Amino acid sequence: MAVNLPTLGELLPVSGVRLCTACAGIKQRRRDDLAIIELAEGSTVAGVFTQNRFRAPPVALAEARIQSGNPRLLLINSGNANAATGQRGFEDAEALCRRAAECCGNGIAAEQVLPFSTGVIGERLPVAAMSEAIAAAAARSAEGWAAAAGAIMTTDTAPKAVSERIQVAGAPVTITGIAKGAGMIKPDMATMLAFVCCDAKVRQPALAELARRATARSFNRITVDGDTSTNDAFVVCATGKANHPIIDGPGPTFDALLDGLSKVAAELAQRIIRDAEGATKFVTVRVAGGASEAECLQVAYALAESPLVKTAAFAGDPNWGRFCMAIGRAGIADLDPAGVSVKLDEVPVAQAGLLAPSYDEAAAAAVMAQPEFAIQVDLGRGPCQETVWTSDLSHEYIRINAEYRT
Amino acid sequence: MAVNLPTLGELLPVSGVRLCTACAGIKQRRRDDLAIIELAEGSTVAGVFTQNRFRAPPVALAEARIQSGNPRLLLINSGNANAATGQRGFEDAEALCRRAAECCGNGIAAEQVLPFSTGVIGERLPVAAMSEAIAAAAARSAEGWAAAAGAIMTTDTAPKAVSERIQVAGAPVTITGIAKGAGMIKPDMATMLAFVCCDAKVRQPALAELARRATARSFNRITVDGDTSTNDAFVVCATGKANHPIIDGPGPTFDALLDGLSKVAAELAQRIIRDAEGATKFVTVRVAGGASEAECLQVAYALAESPLVKTAAFAGDPNWGRFCMAIGRAGIADLDPAGVSVKLDEVPVAQAGLLAPSYDEAAAAAVMAQPEFAIQVDLGRGPCQETVWTSDLSHEYIRINAEYRT
Repeated sequence: MAVNLPTLGELLPVSGVRLCTACAGIKQRRRDDLAIIELAEGSTVAGVFTQNRFRAPPVALAEARIQSGNPRLLLINSGNANAATGQRGFEDAEALCRRAAECCGNGIAAEQVLPFSTGVIGERLPVAAMSEAIAAAAARSAEGWAAAAGAIMTTDTAPKAVSERIQVAGAPVTITGIAKGAGMIKPDMATMLAFVCCDAKVRQPALAELARRATARSFNRITVDGDTSTNDAFVVCATGKANHPIIDGPGPTFDALLDGLSKVAAELAQRIIRDAEGATKFVTVRVAGGASEAECLQVAYALAESPLVKTAAFAGDPNWGRFCMAIGRAGIADLDPAGVSVKLDEVPVAQAGLLAPSYDEAAAAAVMAQPEFAIQVDLGRGPCQETVWTSDLSHEYIRINAEYRT
Repeated sequence: MAVNLPTLGELLPVSGVRLCTACAGIKQRRRDDLAIIELAEGSTVAGVFTQNRFRAPPVALAEARIQSGNPRLLLINSGNANAATGQRGFEDAEALCRRAAECCGNGIAAEQVLPFSTGVIGERLPVAAMSEAIAAAAARSAEGWAAAAGAIMTTDTAPKAVSERIQVAGAPVTITGIAKGAGMIKPDMATMLAFVCCDAKVRQPALAELARRATARSFNRITVDGDTSTNDAFVVCATGKANHPIIDGPGPTFDALLDGLSKVAAELAQRIIRDAEGATKFVTVRVAGGASEAECLQVAYALAESPLVKTAAFAGDPNWGRFCMAIGRAGIADLDPAGVSVKLDEVPVAQAGLLAPSYDEAAAAAVMAQPEFAIQVDLGRGPCQETVWTSDLSHEYIRINAEYRT
């Protein structure tokens, strides 16, 4: 039921990045479920991780190792999230990182391996089978991005990967990323993982800031139902192979790379929503005229997470009372309804807090009948704006989530 | 599909309260949709109103009149919320209040009439038909609480009313209340209204405090989907006919009345959840061991509003990973998962942040197969606790909300 989910286009190799995959049979025996991303010496790595307090052992380990070391390998498995597994979960992740360092050679230490897991919560990793698969993967020649995008999938209906080529200070820079999600919210699936590599030259603190800012334009602007998983992670790697002056802080090269990374991240984030559970609509919620970006986001999320708005989207019903209700409850204490207008794409729905005088129900319904449309809000009180992407709430969502284990 | 919703029991008349109803044919021609509650001179009235910024004209008018005057009449209609109707909505509400004051006589001024409306958003009230119905209602002798409970219904499957008799300083006090809801969230229905009358003697500021505190134990502890309507109101009236010293602030008589009002309000609130849209389960979420009541509430609402937890409730699936996910994302920055335990009724599910060693899937599933059960969380970090009541998220919820206008 994915909504206009593109098939994989051309995926550009990133100089300094080697990828290999293998099948450990963690949950399914017939497809690769383990991927290794090897980064050339001198690469820098940054990450943004779930704020969920029940964060999984691999997430905690990966974050700590990014802060303390010079990561060289990303070890990723699907099928099992190694979440809510306690001390044993840490030990398993550490053992597999040691194994990956041994198998890949190249002078990589165990502490330079970052583990990532996605899949069922509360079960131990099959360490023996994964150890074998790690050896098999490491022995293979690189198979590229498409194979890696496939190996990290859980219940995604299709792999998600994007490439972009940009210019930084006149030098070509290649960015390629992969993601898996199927919503923030796959049942029991500790959910979103995204890895974006580029050959730009960036010092780690600047890369960390780039990762944070790109997240704010992409993965932190999508929602299926407001639930966040124990394993969410977005990692950015820069191999330094491109031929431009090193980026170590704000400036034109920083901005150029930010635009490129944000574009790849936003496209991956949107594909996650297109493939969200039970999604039949891809909805862009754009809130302008706010006094701050924060209040625009509040309103955008109130709309994007309201079950009433989401069921209206599913039904294709231009139920303007629900839009006003959600805007009104978003928590802006001094919001004046008389300043608020709402359009569906370009069709006026509400104006000055009331039904728009020109309201045309058939035109509004036609907008919402499309697989993709935008809810455009103007708060009429300032210069700020924000955009959030979401899916609708369908029978299929209930079916998937209610019948998952039955 | 209501869950164990009791039929109306004996409803006790409250001295100093007269109720009458009539049919204005606002949305349906076959049943009463207009109710008038007349209060004896000297009554005090307090209210708690929706925080939605798109609050309807009658809500704004009722709140202002409670603050400025001595209300004597509550004029309530179902079928039309008089919401998002702008200046005309105010004028219509004011005109109907004048009409009610004229028809009821007894020296009541228009400013002593509080209007309440519930139903479709964005349409003008049928003022002429309602004026006639007001005259017809006023001419009737009192028909009592059951008729009023019926007249304020929109898509509720059954009327909701409760009585309680308590002692205040040795004197009997009668409390009777009615409510309508069918969830916080009836599609396009500007939703929850509740009116509780008693014959206690209470000064207005003390009654306002009693209303606030009773709300915090009842209507502010229920959620269907987190959406709040433009018309939500809870009004408490005290006629002063009972034979106890006047209550003007904290003390034993205040506490006695608070307990009685809270009991009636909580029962009404719970009945709203039992009759929530598509509800097949009535779920009590109890969070103990918190460092503050605020953080207990955060966790309780994160669980009660998580679509993943609600679909698990629908499916009867003891999906403990989802409970932990929701607790972890509730926003307690320093929550230690190792201190957290979860029980379904009395069956341990999670302990020290991991699957409980004694976990028995069949026993947990048996708890969730019941029409009513409790999710009991202990945060293990303090003495505070809070309770919230909610429903599950079912196919029927989607059907009702998606197909409402088709």
